[in-house]
Amino acid sequence: MTHPYDSDDLTWMRRALALAQTVMYTTAPNPRVGCVIVRDGRVLGEGATQPPGGPHAEVGALRDAQARGESVAGATVYVTLEPCSHFGRTPPCVDALLAARPARVVVALGDPNPLVNGRGLARLREAGIAVTTGVCRDEALAINAGFMSRMSRGLPWTWLKMATSLDGRSALHNGVSQWITGPEARADGHRWRARSCVVLTGIGTVLKDDPQLTVRSVATPRQPRRAVVDGRFELPEDARLIDGGEVIVFTARADAAKAARLAARNVRVVELPGQEPHRVDLPAMMRWFAAEQFNEVHVEAGAGLSGALVAAGCIDELLVYLAPMLLGEAAGLVKLPLLERLEAAPRYEFIDAERVGADLRVRARVADHWRELMRRVELPTLS
Amino acid sequence: MTHPYDSDDLTWMRRALALAQTVMYTTAPNPRVGCVIVRDGRVLGEGATQPPGGPHAEVGALRDAQARGESVAGATVYVTLEPCSHFGRTPPCVDALLAARPARVVVALGDPNPLVNGRGLARLREAGIAVTTGVCRDEALAINAGFMSRMSRGLPWTWLKMATSLDGRSALHNGVSQWITGPEARADGHRWRARSCVVLTGIGTVLKDDPQLTVRSVATPRQPRRAVVDGRFELPEDARLIDGGEVIVFTARADAAKAARLAARNVRVVELPGQEPHRVDLPAMMRWFAAEQFNEVHVEAGAGLSGALVAAGCIDELLVYLAPMLLGEAAGLVKLPLLERLEAAPRYEFIDAERVGADLRVRARVADHWRELMRRVELPTLS
Repeated sequence: MTHPYDSDDLTWMRRALALAQTVMYTTAPNPRVGCVIVRDGRVLGEGATQPPGGPHAEVGALRDAQARGESVAGATVYVTLEPCSHFGRTPPCVDALLAARPARVVVALGDPNPLVNGRGLARLREAGIAVTTGVCRDEALAINAGFMSRMSRGLPWTWLKMATSLDGRSALHNGVSQWITGPEARADGHRWRARSCVVLTGIGTVLKDDPQLTVRSVATPRQPRRAVVDGRFELPEDARLIDGGEVIVFTARADAAKAARLAARNVRVVELPGQEPHRVDLPAMMRWFAAEQFNEVHVEAGAGLSGALVAAGCIDELLVYLAPMLLGEAAGLVKLPLLERLEAAPRYEFIDAERVGADLRVRARVADHWRELMRRVELPTLS
Repeated sequence: MTHPYDSDDLTWMRRALALAQTVMYTTAPNPRVGCVIVRDGRVLGEGATQPPGGPHAEVGALRDAQARGESVAGATVYVTLEPCSHFGRTPPCVDALLAARPARVVVALGDPNPLVNGRGLARLREAGIAVTTGVCRDEALAINAGFMSRMSRGLPWTWLKMATSLDGRSALHNGVSQWITGPEARADGHRWRARSCVVLTGIGTVLKDDPQLTVRSVATPRQPRRAVVDGRFELPEDARLIDGGEVIVFTARADAAKAARLAARNVRVVELPGQEPHRVDLPAMMRWFAAEQFNEVHVEAGAGLSGALVAAGCIDELLVYLAPMLLGEAAGLVKLPLLERLEAAPRYEFIDAERVGADLRVRARVADHWRELMRRVELPTLS
C-alpha cells in the first residue's frame, strides 16, 4: 500500500526535481536524480547524482545532512527516482537509507532498471519505512525520459529539433537559413544538445553546411557525441566534425580502408544496412543507441533524414523553434511519403509553448510513446 | 498632470476591461467600453457599451448605480476609453459624469476620435475631478485595435487567420484540408469572426470551397458582413454566401448587368482596380473599409490572397492555429514574392500562444503597426 501525499510533498518533490535539473548535462548514462531530506519543514540535507562513479543523489543528501550535523532518523526523504538496491559502480542507496532510518521515503517514479524495479521500495517497506510513490511523476519522467526509455523499451528518447518560419520554412529557395531564429533560440537549442547523449544529423547536412555539432552557446563539462547517417559512406575526411571527439557514422556499407583511417581519428563506423540499397536501417540504429547506453538522441537534420525518422517511428518528440516571420515558397521541414488522408499524418500532442527571445519554442510528443513509457515505469503493486 | 495609479486601480480597470469583453460582438462601429464605479472598495455600478444608439458604458454604470440607490459623488470611475464629449447618437458621457460628481476618473486610453481626443478629460479636469490615464493601456488597445486604427490611421485592424500543421501546410497535395485543426480551434476561429466587422476571402476559396463565411460555432446577435476579392468578377451567382446578408465584392472591373442582379440580392459590388490587370487595389480596399466604418477585418483566404495582403502591408496580425501534426509536401500557407535575403521577410512579434483543444493558437502582430497605433492614441499632454 502506498501512503497518500499532500501539498508539502509536492513542494519538496519539486525541490528535488530542481536539484535533478542542475545535473542535466553530467550524469549520463545514469539518470538525473535529486534528493531532499526534510524534518518539520526544515531541510536537513540535499543532493543530486554526481557523474558516473560518484555518489548518487540519496547518498549525497545523507552526506550533506551528516556534514551539517543533522540526524536523518525519523525524517522524510524525497527522491525523484526509486533508490537503487543493487551494486553498480556504487553500493546500493537503499542500504544507506536503511542505515539512516528515515520515517518515510517519497519517490516520484519507480526505477525501470530490471535490477531495481520495485525492489528498492520493497526493502524500505519491509524495514517499516513508510513509502509514498507517484508524486510529480510526469515531471520526473520528463527529466529522465531517455534513461527510462532505454531501460524499459530498449530505445533512446529521441527529439527532432527544427527551426522554422511561421509558415513552416527552414530556408529560402536559395538555401539561406542563417539565421531564421534569434540568438536566444539558438542558445536554447544548444541546451538541448548539451543534455543529449548524441547529436545526430544526415550526410546531406554535413556536405552542405559542414557543421561541428558541438555544444557552444552554453557551458557544459561534457560534450555529447556526434553521429551521422551516411548510407553511401560519403563522409569527407576533412569534415569539421572530425575533431578528435567521438563521432559515429552509420552506413549501409563501409569501405574498410576509409573506416580504418577514420577509426584512428576517433570515428566509429557502424554498418546497419536497411531494406533499400544505400539506406541505413533507422530503427536498428535506435536500438544500437540504447544498447550502447545512449539515453537521449538530439536530431538536427535536413528534410530528408528528418522525414525518414518520422516516417520510421523513430521520433518521440518535436522541438520546434518558430520564428515570427513568413517566407513563402521555400524549403520545407520534413520530407514524408505523400499522404492521401489527414488521418495518415504523423500526430503529436503539444507539451508546451514558450517564448525564447523573439521566437516561440513549441514542444510536442508522440502521445502513444509517452503513454507506453509511463505505463512501463509505473511501480508494481506491492502486497 | 496625470495622477499616479496603484494596484487597486489595476484591479478595477481589469474589471472594466472584462465588462468591455462582454460586448465584443455587438458595439461596432462603436468601440467596446467597460465602466466600473467604485467607492471604498465597493462597486456602486457598472456598465458596458450597448449596441449603436444605446447608452455608452459610463451612462450604463451611472444608471446602474442609481438603480441600486447609490450616490456616485466622491467615487472613482474606471473606464476603458476616454469618455466622449460630443453629441453623436447619444449625448456626451462627460456631461453625465460631471453631473454625478465623482472625485476621480481613471481611463485606460484616450479616444482618437478627432471629436473627442483629450477634450473629454480636459473638461473633467476643469471641473476639479482628478484624472488618471494609461492604466492597462495595452489590454485596452487590444480590445479596440480596430476602432482605434480606423480613427487614427484611416485603416481597419486586419488579422489573417490560418490553420496549419506544425510544418506549415494548410492542405494535403490532393486538396484535403478538413479538418487539420480540431473542433475547439474551429470554434475559437468563429469567435474571431464574430468580433470582426467583415470576413474577407478570395474568389479562389469561393470557387473551391463555396463557404458561407458566417459565424456558426458561437452565439452572436450580429453577423459580420462577408467580402470577396474577385478581380475578374467571377463570383458564381449561386454561391452559398449570397444568402440575403450583406456581401461586398471587390473587383477590378464590374459587369453592370451582373452587378445589378447581385445588388438586388444584397451584394454590393465595389470597383477598385489595381495596377496590374484583373487585380484589386488591396490598400485602397482597406481604406474603403475604414471609410465605411469597418473596424476589424478577419481574413480567411488561400495562399494567393493571403500572400498578396501580406506583401501589400495590409495585414496587422496573424492568427495561426497550429495542429500537432506533420504533413510533408503539400499546400503552403502564403504565396509571397521570392525572397533572396532573410532580412526581406515579413516579420512579426508574438503576442501569445495558447492551447485550444489539441491545437495551439499563436498570435503575432506587425510590431511597427502596433507601435504606430499606440503612439497615435496616446493622450496629449494637458497643461
